[in-house]
Order: sequence, then C-alpha cells, then structure tokens
Amino acid sequence: MKEYKLDEIKYLKIHGRTAGSLSPLPLFWTGSGIELNTKGAELWIEVEVDYELYEPWLGVFINSAQVSRQMLLKGRYWLCLYRGMNESTVKNVRIIREVQAMNGDPACSLVVHAVRLEGEFLPIEEKKLKIEFIGDSITSGEGVVGAKEEEDWISMWFSASENYTLLTANALKADYRVISESGWGVLTSWDNNPDYSIPQYYEKVCGVLTGEKNEGLGAQKENDFDAWQPDIVVVNLGTNDNSAFNSPEWRDEAGRSHKQRLNEDGSFNEEDLDAFEAAVENFLIKLRKYNKTAHIVWAYGMLGNALMPAIYRAVDKYRKLSSDKKVSVLQLPDTTEKTVGARSHPGILSHKKAAEELSVYLNKLINTMN
Amino acid sequence: MKEYKLDEIKYLKIHGRTAGSLSPLPLFWTGSGIELNTKGAELWIEVEVDYELYEPWLGVFINSAQVSRQMLLKGRYWLCLYRGMNESTVKNVRIIREVQAMNGDPACSLVVHAVRLEGEFLPIEEKKLKIEFIGDSITSGEGVVGAKEEEDWISMWFSASENYTLLTANALKADYRVISESGWGVLTSWDNNPDYSIPQYYEKVCGVLTGEKNEGLGAQKENDFDAWQPDIVVVNLGTNDNSAFNSPEWRDEAGRSHKQRLNEDGSFNEEDLDAFEAAVENFLIKLRKYNKTAHIVWAYGMLGNALMPAIYRAVDKYRKLSSDKKVSVLQLPDTTEKTVGARSHPGILSHKKAAEELSVYLNKLINTMN
Amino acid sequence: MKEYKLDEIKYLKIHGRTAGSLSPLPLFWTGSGIELNTKGAELWIEVEVDYELYEPWLGVFINSAQVSRQMLLKGRYWLCLYRGMNESTVKNVRIIREVQAMNGDPACSLVVHAVRLEGEFLPIEEKKLKIEFIGDSITSGEGVVGAKEEEDWISMWFSASENYTLLTANALKADYRVISESGWGVLTSWDNNPDYSIPQYYEKVCGVLTGEKNEGLGAQKENDFDAWQPDIVVVNLGTNDNSAFNSPEWRDEAGRSHKQRLNEDGSFNEEDLDAFEAAVENFLIKLRKYNKTAHIVWAYGMLGNALMPAIYRAVDKYRKLSSDKKVSVLQLPDTTEKTVGARSHPGILSHKKAAEELSVYLNKLINTMN
Amino acid sequence: MKEYKLDEIKYLKIHGRTAGSLSPLPLFWTGSGIELNTKGAELWIEVEVDYELYEPWLGVFINSAQVSRQMLLKGRYWLCLYRGMNESTVKNVRIIREVQAMNGDPACSLVVHAVRLEGEFLPIEEKKLKIEFIGDSITSGEGVVGAKEEEDWISMWFSASENYTLLTANALKADYRVISESGWGVLTSWDNNPDYSIPQYYEKVCGVLTGEKNEGLGAQKENDFDAWQPDIVVVNLGTNDNSAFNSPEWRDEAGRSHKQRLNEDGSFNEEDLDAFEAAVENFLIKLRKYNKTAHIVWAYGMLGNALMPAIYRAVDKYRKLSSDKKVSVLQLPDTTEKTVGARSHPGILSHKKAAEELSVYLNKLINTMN
Repeated sequence: MKEYKLDEIKYLKIHGRTAGSLSPLPLFWTGSGIELNTKGAELWIEVEVDYELYEPWLGVFINSAQVSRQMLLKGRYWLCLYRGMNESTVKNVRIIREVQAMNGDPACSLVVHAVRLEGEFLPIEEKKLKIEFIGDSITSGEGVVGAKEEEDWISMWFSASENYTLLTANALKADYRVISESGWGVLTSWDNNPDYSIPQYYEKVCGVLTGEKNEGLGAQKENDFDAWQPDIVVVNLGTNDNSAFNSPEWRDEAGRSHKQRLNEDGSFNEEDLDAFEAAVENFLIKLRKYNKTAHIVWAYGMLGNALMPAIYRAVDKYRKLSSDKKVSVLQLPDTTEKTVGARSHPGILSHKKAAEELSVYLNKLINTMN
Repeated sequence: MKEYKLDEIKYLKIHGRTAGSLSPLPLFWTGSGIELNTKGAELWIEVEVDYELYEPWLGVFINSAQVSRQMLLKGRYWLCLYRGMNESTVKNVRIIREVQAMNGDPACSLVVHAVRLEGEFLPIEEKKLKIEFIGDSITSGEGVVGAKEEEDWISMWFSASENYTLLTANALKADYRVISESGWGVLTSWDNNPDYSIPQYYEKVCGVLTGEKNEGLGAQKENDFDAWQPDIVVVNLGTNDNSAFNSPEWRDEAGRSHKQRLNEDGSFNEEDLDAFEAAVENFLIKLRKYNKTAHIVWAYGMLGNALMPAIYRAVDKYRKLSSDKKVSVLQLPDTTEKTVGARSHPGILSHKKAAEELSVYLNKLINTMN
Repeated sequence: MKEYKLDEIKYLKIHGRTAGSLSPLPLFWTGSGIELNTKGAELWIEVEVDYELYEPWLGVFINSAQVSRQMLLKGRYWLCLYRGMNESTVKNVRIIREVQAMNGDPACSLVVHAVRLEGEFLPIEEKKLKIEFIGDSITSGEGVVGAKEEEDWISMWFSASENYTLLTANALKADYRVISESGWGVLTSWDNNPDYSIPQYYEKVCGVLTGEKNEGLGAQKENDFDAWQPDIVVVNLGTNDNSAFNSPEWRDEAGRSHKQRLNEDGSFNEEDLDAFEAAVENFLIKLRKYNKTAHIVWAYGMLGNALMPAIYRAVDKYRKLSSDKKVSVLQLPDTTEKTVGARSHPGILSHKKAAEELSVYLNKLINTMN
Repeated sequence: MKEYKLDEIKYLKIHGRTAGSLSPLPLFWTGSGIELNTKGAELWIEVEVDYELYEPWLGVFINSAQVSRQMLLKGRYWLCLYRGMNESTVKNVRIIREVQAMNGDPACSLVVHAVRLEGEFLPIEEKKLKIEFIGDSITSGEGVVGAKEEEDWISMWFSASENYTLLTANALKADYRVISESGWGVLTSWDNNPDYSIPQYYEKVCGVLTGEKNEGLGAQKENDFDAWQPDIVVVNLGTNDNSAFNSPEWRDEAGRSHKQRLNEDGSFNEEDLDAFEAAVENFLIKLRKYNKTAHIVWAYGMLGNALMPAIYRAVDKYRKLSSDKKVSVLQLPDTTEKTVGARSHPGILSHKKAAEELSVYLNKLINTMN
C-alpha cells in the first residue's frame, strides 16, 4: 500500500470548517470529516487523538451505510476503514467526527494525517445544496446514544450519525456543516453564562475551542466564508436561553454576574426577554453578513417551545429593519416520552421526526423562493 | 485502576460456548462475549486479535444500549469500554463478537485476557430463559450492515447486534447462544460440500474452526452440554441445502463428489430430497440427545421456503419415531425488496420482522406447553 | 320496542351546540351528535333529513369503534344503530354528523326525533376535559375521504370521524365541539369575502347557517356559553386568510369589494396584513369574553404556515394588552405528498400527525399551567 | 335520470359468483358486488333486502377509496352512490357486500335490481389476474369491525373491505372472489358438525345458503367454473377443524354424531387427524378438478397453526399421488394482542400483515412458476 499525505490526494472532500491546513487536517466540529472515492482492496487512515476529559468518537460510512462507530483512544495510529474488498469497484468512504467540539477540554483534539491505499482515488460528487446547522446539545446529538437512564455528561452519548442534521442533509441530497455546543445559547448558556453564546464565536473557524494546541490547529482563525457559502442556514438555538430563566445566577471570579429572570408569576421578565430577542436579532444580522444569499431558518422546539413567541418577534423585527425576506421560523416537533433518548434529550426517533418536518419545509423553501 | 485476570473477577457472565478456560477467554461464535456489572468511573478490557483474511468486529452495550461497533485490528491491546462516568452508579456492560466463527481463516481469533477497573464488580442477573440459535449466514447476520449493492464477502457486513437472535432473546428476556456458519446447511453447504454441514460439528465447542491455534484455545473439545441447557433450540437451517440443488457439483482433490440434483422439470430429485430429510431427522436426534428438555423449533423461511415441505416431513417422521412432542416448525417471514440488506441477505427490517414473529411463537410455546 | 322522544330519555348526552330544543334535536355542526348507554337487543333512531345541494352523512360508533358511515337521503325515517345484540350488556352508542354546517345550502338540515329501544338507558360518563375546535375545511375534515384525484366539492369527502378533532379529544379523554366552515377565515374567506369569517358568527348557536328552516331550528339564537365552558379552545384558522392574498378581489352586487393584497415582490401588503392581525386579536378578545378560563391555542400549519409570523404578532399584542397568559400558538405539521388526501387537503395520515402533536402539547399545557 | 335494468347496462362488471341472472342480481358471498365506470352527476342503485336474523351490510368505493359502509334494512329501495359530481369526469364505482353468506338465516338476501344515471356507462378494465379465496370467519372478516370486548355474533362486526382478501387482490392488481363461512372447516365445523364443511358445497354457486328464496335466486345451481377460472386459489381453512378437537361432540336429532378427539396427553387422535388430512387431500382433488391451471395455496395460521403439520402432510400426499406441482402451503402471521380485533378474531392490523406476506408470496409464485 502507498501512503499519502492528505495534500497528495487528488480527490479529497472535506466536511466541516477548517483553517485550510491539511498537514494535518483537524476535525473540529461534530459532523466534520473527510470523504473519498477509492478503488483498491484496503484503505487505512492515520489519526492523532488527544484529550484530558472528553475523548472523540469516530463514525465510518461505506457507500452511505454506517459500518462502525468507535471511541478514539489517545495517540497517533492507523485505523483500517475497509479491507478485503474487490479491488476494482469504487467505494465511497466517509469518516465523521461523532462528538462536538469540546470547549471544556483544551486537550481534546482529533486530526487526520494520512491515508494508505493500494489503488486509485476518484472524483467525488459535489452536492448541489449546502446547509449549515447551528445549534446546541440537540444539534450535537447529545443523548441519541445510550439508555434513557443515563445521566453522565460524557462523549459516548453524542452522535453525529443518527442526527437530524445528517438525516436532513441526506433527504435533501445536501452537503452540510455543523456549529454546535451543548449547553450554549444565543444570549447565554443554560446556566446564565454570557460568555457561552454561539454568536460571539461564529466568525472563527472553531472559536469555542480553547487551549494552545487548538489555536495552533487554526481554531481561532477567521473562517473563510467565501470558500463555502451555504444555501440554507438552520439555527436551532433558544433551548438553553430558556433554561437560563430557570437556573440560578451566573457569577465568575472577577465578580461579573448574569441572570435571566422570571417574574413572580413564572412569566419571563420583560427586560431579560428583550435582551434575548436583541441577541436573536443581532445574530441574524451577523449571519446575513457572512451568508449573503442563504435562506436562514430558525428551527426550534425539540425540547419545548417556550421562547417561540420571542423568536418570532425578533425575526419579525429583523425582517422589518433589514427588508431581508429570506429569514423564517419553523417549529420542530417536541420530544415525547416515546421519542426521548438518554439524558432527557431527543432520541433517534425525535431526530427522525425533526428531520422529516425540516426536510419538507426546506424543500418547499428552495423550490418556491429561489 | 486495578487489573484483573478474568478468573479473578468475582462476578463474570460469559455468553457463548467456551472450553472452560478463562486465561484467556476465546470468543468463538458470533454473539459471544462477556457481561459485567461494574461500579467505577472507567472500564477497560484487554483483547488479543489475530487473522489472515477475516478480522473480528466488536460491539459494546452499556445498560443494554449499543454504544459502539468496531473492527478489531491485529495485536494484543486494551480497549476502553467507558470512561468519565459516575463512580457510584452500577453500569451493565456487555461486549459482543459481531462476526461469526471463521472456518475459512485458521488464523482468525479473538480472545479476552483481562479487565481494568477502579471500582467494584457486582452480581449479574441470571435470565430465566435460555435459547440456542443454530443457523447459517442469516443467523450470522450477514448483510445486516452495508449498502444493498455490496457484494464482497467480508467481516464488515456481519452483525450480531442487529440480528433476530439478540432481538428475540431481548423480547423474551432470555440469555442466548449462537452456532452459525455462513453457507453451511444440514446436509451440505450451498455448493454441495458435504463436509460443511452444521450437525457434524455440533458436539464440539466450536468444531467449524480450523488450525492449531483454535485447537489450542479449545475449539475442538467436546462441548459441556450439562453446563448450559437451553429451554429452547431454534434451528434456522435449510436455506443453503436448497441452494445446493441449484449449484454445480462439489468435487474435492481426493475425488470425492456430491450433488443435490434437480429433476428436469425443476423439481427436487426424490432421492436427494430424502437425503436432506434424513439429515434433518438425524440432526433432531442429535439435538435431543444433548438438549434433554428443550423445545426444538425449526424456524425457516427468511430467504424463501422451498424446502419447507421436506422439513415438515422430516420433523413429522422424527416425532413419530421418537414420540418426542417438543419439536415444531415455524415459517419465518420472507425477505422482500423493502427489507433486504447487503449481499441480497436479510436487512435489519427483515431481522426485526423475524424476531417479532418468532417471539410471539416462542412465548406461546413456553406458556402453553410447560 | 318502546319509542322515546329525546326529552323522555333519562340519560342522553348531546355533542355539539344546540339551541336547547330536543323536539327535534338539530345536529348543526360537524362532529355533533348524541351518545347513549343502552341495554337491549336493538336500538333505532328516527332522523329527518333535508337538503337541496349538500346531503348530510352520519357516522355510528359502538363502544368507541366506528361501525358505519353513510349518506343520509331526504325524508323522515328510522335508522337501526344495532340489532341482535346481547340484551343484558351495556352498549355505548354514538352517532356523529360527518359533514359540516352547510352555509351554501339553506335547505340542508339533519334532526333527530326519537329513539326506539326495548331495554334500559343508563348514565353516561362525563369527561373531565372539554375542548372546542374552531376551524375551516381542515377542521371540517374535507378530503379525509376520497381518492387523491377528487376535485368536486361535495359532502362525501368530509369526515368528522377520521379527523384530528376526534383523535385529539380521544387522546385526552375529552368531550369536544367543533365550529368550522370550509373556505372561511378570521378576516375573510379564501376568495376575499369579508362576510365569510368565523368570528362574526361565533356568538350564535350556528350562525353560519342560512334560511328560515335553520332559523326555526334555533341556529341564529345566542349560544348559551355558560352551559358548556371548554377547558381548551383550539383555533385552526388562517389558511383561508392566506389564500385570500392569492385570490382575486371579491365584489358583491351591492358594489362592496375586498382584496387582501400582495406586494409586487410577492410579500404580504402591510396594511392588509395588519387587518388580518387585528382580526386575530379581536377574535381572541371575543373568545376570552365567552370562554373565561379556557386555554386558547392557535394551532395552525397543516396546509402551509405563511401567516404564522402574523399570528404570533397578533397573539403577542393581545397578550400584552390583555395580560391574558392562557393564550399560545402551536404550529401543526404540514401536509406532504405522503399525507395528503382528496382535494389537496390533509388526508387521514396528516390528521393523525396533527392529533399526535396537538395532544402532546395540550397535555403539557393542562398539566403544567393549571 | 334514466333507469337501467342491470341487463340493459352496456358495461357492467360483476364480482362474486352468480347463477347468471341479472334480474335481479343476487350478491351471495362476502366481497361480491358490481363495478361501474360512469359519467354523470349522480348515480343510484336499487337494492332489495331481506333477513330474519342477520342483515346484510354494504360498502361503497369511489375511485378505489371507500366512502361508506352501512347496514341495509329490509325492503326494496334506492341508494344514492354519489351525487353532485362533475358530469364529465369518469367515476369508478364499486359496491361490495360486507357480510358473508348467512347459512343460519334462510331469509337473508341482498339483490340488485337496477341503476339510475343521467349520463354514460364506460368500459371497465379487466384485471390480468384472478384470485379465489376460500375460508372461514377469518376470510369473512369477522371481528375486523368493532371494539375488542364485543362478543355478540352479528353482521355488524364483519367486513369485506378491510380484509386481507381485498388488500391482497389490490396489491396484486387482481380481481377476486370469496367463498367463506364463519365456523366452518375442511372436515367439520368448529363444533364437530360434519355437514358444515366448505368442500361439500364448493360446486354450487352458493351452496351454504338455505331456504327456498335463495334457491330461487340460484344459490344451489351448479357453478359455471368455465366462466371464471382463477389464476390462484387461496385456501385459508383448518382453524375450525382445530377447534373441533377442543369442542364437545356434535350430535343431531337423527342420532348422528361426530367428534374429533384429543388423546389424553392433549395431542391429536391419530385416526381423527387422518380424517382431517384426507379431507384436505380430497378438497385439493376437487379444487383441481374445477380449477385446471390455478396455483393452489393453502394459507393458514392467522389464529394459531396447530394443524400445519397435518396440512403439510396432506398436501404432500396429494402432490405425490397427483404429480400436481402447483399446490403449496404458506403460513400466515399469527394474530397477537396488538393485532387482534373484535370477538378474539384478527383485527385490521392482522389482516394487513397477512395481506403483506401473502402478496409477496403470490407475487413470487406467479413470476417464477408461470
């Protein structure tokens, strides 16, 4: 078998945001990976993995069927993607990072160094549609894997493969990227931390990551938006902003604090709700800045829809001020006892339902509005 | 973490036939593995893997939910089964060999050496029901994994996890074992090889295996039937015996030959059909010898049911001669375009349907006849 | 058998709004009917039916299972609801008007005169929950029955039995009433007719009906809201208001005219959208006036959700002005190629999906907010 | 509208066995009826109905969608099949007798006299495949309609529309006929009555019917087998023969008696089982006599499959003696708690499953064996 550095491979398709470097290629976000069309009996890939707390997991798809999903232990080593196959048939192979970018573990990284193949690389089809998904634990697939009683917050329960993102992309024959972080929101995280909001890191390749190593891999670089302009941006945020109203005040060592408040009767404090709506509106402005022509769809509701009125208000306000018509809101089906997974999060059945509704909606959108 | 040889573990449940040795424990048949109840944050397992042609794959279940499935590369190494979990909760952990015993690769082996845990082992529930499944590629889960267009005969497409055996056992809350070999039958293999019939190897621990190494691991020892008496034996054989009628004559280098013949009008040759029926009858005699009280159910039909009349005749004859009433026949649902998997074999939907029908039938059986 | 006028029946449950009279009892709205618990071998009912254009249809349920659905021809006659049954068991029997109140046919009426029974009437369980559904053709079940290619606007395609209203009520163990009129909206009908809006007829028993006969039956009387206060009001309106934007101007013989306009770019005219929102807001005010404590849920989206932002705005405005917190919005699943029925309307699969989502939502609502 | 006697209608398709007369046309068996393609706004049909105990029910299909199902009261009267439709479109209309031929009620009859139409009759497609179903209560659709708790034996619970017969025929695009009688078997009825076996009445148009009126309608005439030769005959019998083993002895006033016996250990008495098998064999001989080229499929198992071994033996014996290869056996899925209907009979879910398995099997049969 011959060994190829990634930049020596003639036909290589990269999924997910990168800083451009291929030596090595870091897989930052959940759902990121590489795709190859190969002839040859055997295919190997060299990865390098590190972590302190949260290990990455890897999914492998052969001809669009998932064949494996495994924990990646520390070290630099070769993984076999397939072996013993007919040399002369073309195999479409895709590896996919199953676990979200881990803000809480600066050591966590997964990079691809090289590929071994006795055979040929072939061109890979470019999909006609591109979708970017932006979300939280739901979009990270937290709880898709695991028994319902599981409560630990660990990598094992995350899945990018059995996830409404991949299912929706498949239904629409689209390429896709995911930006998502468990517990984070538009304005604050579930526990009122204003530093843990997705919007403020959106411009960076993977701004939620921490530590020097990730910086070295390019996580903090400006993202090259021109290189990949989505046709659709799906924002599935708000669930943690709602939790913030029901969680204690956040306070850091420097004495900063934040709290989204409820009124005594259990309704949202008007002022804090306004702050949330302003955050939605500002995020839309930012999204439009970087995604000039995309349909932006705020798709929300898989774990309750308490903030839906506020989201509608914010989108309304944005539309009026901007005259931007390509922004809309979609309610996703709520998770029920039957469709719940681990950690009280949407299970695979909930993801399937969400993908079904979302696909129908997006399909209409691109067919009627373009 | 503390390291335990398997025989140092107080509570260890072994799935699948073994020769008794725990140092190491070979996982011979598909569906075999070990099960543990553990406290502690982290659990590792030391495996040793070898093969020339067909590598083993491993599935991992935590609290009955599958969390991973991966190819096992050559070597002796540690795998992490979970990490970062709450130390004080009890986790039920089960590893399962995903790939059948590989008769065609004497080098193929998978053994478990040891376990690492900082914590406690706890007792594991004994199931009230025990089922033994005996079959061919269908029972080996060939084609459950992989795209429909796949044609290579490789380990990757086999699955013990998404398989009617495990699904049926779960539905009945049973422990189970599998004896199965792709391409093999009751009288001959699909290509008329009379050496490749399951019955002639049934008494051995894993008689279908070849090579000195496997012999050393105990594969050719007499199985200790007293140690594990099933309540139900499901025999899903006949599919390859039918293929034999439609395949060319088998001939070996020593000049031996065999052919199950069709008449000119496409019907089965009477004499050869008789030989098949005698083989079924003899296998029932043997099964009863080793399984004194089990219900024996010949469950057939997932890939056509052309030999069903012959199976009914053979079972009839056996029942008459033996006065053994605990033997019956069940037709399983045929695989269709909608339910087919890779390599024209039953896909996961076909396995689910089979498990549904089989569970209903077995449930009736144990409730009315015992 | 003994004949009973309705007012002679000791235990009689009436579904749907009435003007109080029982001699005879008119079944005005779709889903209305009577319910009896009876002993006795045989049960008959005397109906009187008339129409010029649109005949009524009747559904019969025995012990909650639908046993028949039939066209009702003109005349006064007896229908047998069951016969040949065990005299001593209690049968729950319910008849249900399958077709909406027919504004377009003043002659259309269906009344119940009497019941024949050799046996006993028994008490009927009062449900703990009451729901009122207000809607248009969707809520009238138009298109639930019939082949997809049907285009005629006739009674035959309407169904109250296979309808999200009945399914939701069953899921929540609720009694329910329906106010619905095909083609009508909150502000105007689908063709911009401002006289065909549900709100302006809401106070009457069945104000949408026309003609002297219906007036004689009490259709134009004030509804007695105190007699039946719902716990939940579901409003499924807006679909025809959206159509109005895409339909030609309405103009009557007196020279009155109306048109909900689109801007040149296809977006809604601001002024006309405001008028729609004001209509929603005013309807909420009216609904609250008559339903003091009910949760009001605007449930919309089974045939597209173009007016959802406007509905959210209107509900928002109402909530702010009124401080009424028991008003919310729910998006129902859109109808797709797979779930569509006759006349491009939601089919039974779409109604089932809607009922599923709506039930989950309402269940949460009554469990968390009461 | 113009009135047509049936023999004046240019294009008329009759479903079900008849004695040839059209003035009037008796609908003897369940599933029988007429089919028309009509232009015109309105269509009526004149029926004449009688009964003492068991009334007939009627189903109506417009363009293959069921629109109604109703009890037919005594008398001669006109039923409207549709009204208010577009005059210029072609409507396919089919009426279907929902209830089996009622052996127990000599008065029970349903005949069609005439049709009223202002418009045109058009040719009706001849299906390429013809299927005859022969069975008992299962094939009569007993229990498809009604709540699970129902126990009365009445017409209301029968359905020809939601039935594996119609579903299978639709799946294969076939015309079909049904010969079925609740409680009857191959050798005896469920209560050991040897006069109530289907085979001895097979040659007559509807030999199970009693009374002079039915005789006058032609029920006891020899059936004209040449006029309608099926491609497939499905025999779903054996369920009541099994019940006979578990029911008390039958004895009539003339002192005749019969009892299918169980041995003390609960197994079938050999001699009586032989009698059953002989009855199966003889029925096959008779079926082949009248159906020269049809595939004959004994499809059994929807309410248990205790007699399956005996059926296989009998079919085997028949095949050997006759050299007839177009006879086979298929096990249908057993009914479970989830799929059961009223009166402990298969519900609609069970019929759907049966139709699915049967369609797949028959489809293979006609594609590979013809």
